Amino acid sequence: MKEFFDCLKCKECGRTYPKEAQHVCEFDFGPLEATYNYHKLKKYVTRQLLESGPHSMWRYEAFLPLEESPTVGLHTGMTPLIRAHRLGKVLGVKELYIKNDAINYPSLSFKDRVVSVALSRARELNFSIVSCASTGNLANSLAANAASSGFKSYVLIPADLELAKVIGSLVYKTKVIGIRGSYDKVNRLCSEIAGKYRWAFVNVNFRPYYAEGSKTMGFEILEQMGWEIPDHTVICMASGSLLTKIDKAYREAIICGLVEDKPYAIHGAQALGCNPITAAFKKGTDLIRPVPNPSTIAKSLAIGTPADGFYAIQTIRRTGGFSEDVNDLEIIEGIKILAETEGIFAETAGGVTVGCAKKLIEKGHIPPSGKIVLCITGNGLKTADVLKDHLQPIQIIDPTIQDFDKIVAL
Amino acid sequence: MKEFFDCLKCKECGRTYPKEAQHVCEFDFGPLEATYNYHKLKKYVTRQLLESGPHSMWRYEAFLPLEESPTVGLHTGMTPLIRAHRLGKVLGVKELYIKNDAINYPSLSFKDRVVSVALSRARELNFSIVSCASTGNLANSLAANAASSGFKSYVLIPADLELAKVIGSLVYKTKVIGIRGSYDKVNRLCSEIAGKYRWAFVNVNFRPYYAEGSKTMGFEILEQMGWEIPDHTVICMASGSLLTKIDKAYREAIICGLVEDKPYAIHGAQALGCNPITAAFKKGTDLIRPVPNPSTIAKSLAIGTPADGFYAIQTIRRTGGFSEDVNDLEIIEGIKILAETEGIFAETAGGVTVGCAKKLIEKGHIPPSGKIVLCITGNGLKTADVLKDHLQPIQIIDPTIQDFDKIVAL
Repeated sequence: MKEFFDCLKCKECGRTYPKEAQHVCEFDFGPLEATYNYHKLKKYVTRQLLESGPHSMWRYEAFLPLEESPTVGLHTGMTPLIRAHRLGKVLGVKELYIKNDAINYPSLSFKDRVVSVALSRARELNFSIVSCASTGNLANSLAANAASSGFKSYVLIPADLELAKVIGSLVYKTKVIGIRGSYDKVNRLCSEIAGKYRWAFVNVNFRPYYAEGSKTMGFEILEQMGWEIPDHTVICMASGSLLTKIDKAYREAIICGLVEDKPYAIHGAQALGCNPITAAFKKGTDLIRPVPNPSTIAKSLAIGTPADGFYAIQTIRRTGGFSEDVNDLEIIEGIKILAETEGIFAETAGGVTVGCAKKLIEKGHIPPSGKIVLCITGNGLKTADVLKDHLQPIQIIDPTIQDFDKIVAL
Repeated sequence: MKEFFDCLKCKECGRTYPKEAQHVCEFDFGPLEATYNYHKLKKYVTRQLLESGPHSMWRYEAFLPLEESPTVGLHTGMTPLIRAHRLGKVLGVKELYIKNDAINYPSLSFKDRVVSVALSRARELNFSIVSCASTGNLANSLAANAASSGFKSYVLIPADLELAKVIGSLVYKTKVIGIRGSYDKVNRLCSEIAGKYRWAFVNVNFRPYYAEGSKTMGFEILEQMGWEIPDHTVICMASGSLLTKIDKAYREAIICGLVEDKPYAIHGAQALGCNPITAAFKKGTDLIRPVPNPSTIAKSLAIGTPADGFYAIQTIRRTGGFSEDVNDLEIIEGIKILAETEGIFAETAGGVTVGCAKKLIEKGHIPPSGKIVLCITGNGLKTADVLKDHLQPIQIIDPTIQDFDKIVAL
């Protein structure tokens, strides 16, 4: 909201910038971030005000970098927070919750949050073409939201993405461009294009607006927990942005007096086949070593040079969290255990989160007491193919009670 | 709710039955239906009361056939009703809405509504094994909800279902049994099994409870329209049950004084490759001629002997609606047009609804003025494969700005 959204500010040197389509500091190339007038914000927001807002992420509009009312993605957010008794039992913890963005509107991932903000801002700044570099979910969301709000759109993805994610973009009539090479090559190309064309690249020149959308997942968790910060939050990491923004939401909620200030730990989760942040964390360094050739079934997390990796590590360290990683089999195990116990079908990234949470609990980084939230970010139908060879087979019979009796007796 | 839920009653002869796991009248084999004490209900429900309920289908609990509070599917329903300006323009109508159950919780179809009621009732009646005959969506929903609530489950499906729907059931560790033959053979087998095993077959012996869940889609439409019955509602038909239950919700809302009593039309939509209800309607008969070998990409609607077909025709006729059908290409066109204009990716059944609505408007059965609601019942990721050869191709390039420039210039 105009009253609270101040300016963009370099995360490194603190230089301020006007609220334009810019994402990098001209002096030190630090990332720009949206900043707010917390003095005013604190006076304005109350639990009651937020609870009486729309049943969507936009009840937290005061914390988002727009000047007018949102115009894109009005139904996004306020996804369920599930008390996961059955999964908690399996993992050996007392109070477990799942924040479930696998059922986000319209495109079934947390990316609907960031795209809603970025496209609303793109409209404010009079852009008519929107674009992104994506590992799949972002492409789906950009395409869907661009279609419903009348933007022309281009999405750039690694050429080898899951078919469901490709079809789940093409159907909206966006132009899908497959790039030969990893996501990092796609991303670099997008930076070049953003310098040449006047397009709103949601995760390049619009990144300061875009990234703030992730905070709403954090605010919703707090409200749905009864205005309390969970002791442990486990978040999967691609660029690392989501993790830093959920933490930012927690801190903003403290600043504004919405929740009590108390210790909390933020934990990171990556796939072993592309674990630059976890590897650096475990080594005890801030220096992130790029993964040139990611190799994991969690393609949505396969970012070898994570833009916010440094900040994610800082957040995990500052809060006393830990960063973990899991291999492909553990990812599949994570997907299955979540589905079997809670009826939630998550994509591979969700398998990473559950798998890493399991390890963090086993190793004692997350104690069995305390309130734990796992963030599920995308829907299992998008990556269903990975399960093909890992499920009990379907039994095929003739339509007779005799055949059926035999099956049941097994 | 116990206070309002009276008994089961034969739709044909009106004989009443206790609230057990029974679905057919012993005298005339008519279907049993849940009935309520409308005198009491009318005194109890108000718009304000309903609006202050949970953000789920359970705000309409008073209209559902349970005796205690629901225990399964607490997050289901209250899916968005979207004002579809852009699709309305393409179809040439002024005020169009999409009721979007493609994003229902947990399994992305309207079946989550019926399963929530059936499984909650199964618990009340002390069943521990739940089952169903399904064309896919119901299997997904039963499996997901059984997993999260601790029922053992079996789902029976035609052996040739879409892979996404098979995986989307197997992942929850339900026992999936594929039957060689059409859905109708699956259904007949399930009736036999239900007579032999003490299982809660949600759409056989629990059908009177199950079917009532669909009413919540109707109540939500009314509330989201500002407590007004839309002039035209277009609903796809498999068994025909959903259509009759949305109408029942409208009538109950009138009885209880929640909406003004005014004329409204309910329109049915089927796939040409399995159109027993539409064919009968168009012939002007009530006699439904079974389709022995359905052949359509809308597999979720491929029920050749629709259990509620007769009642669906009655409803359509009574309200002055019409019943239409579309071929496979029109279904795909319907999916695409909805995605391109509103950013909503529906499964093939949704393509049937949109395609039929288009025809109904073109033929004048639905006039360009008036409020029109299209009911979208399932998610496009479940049937994405049908689109493979019907979308513009993805363009593949090397990660260079030169290659990109060439693509954009095209």
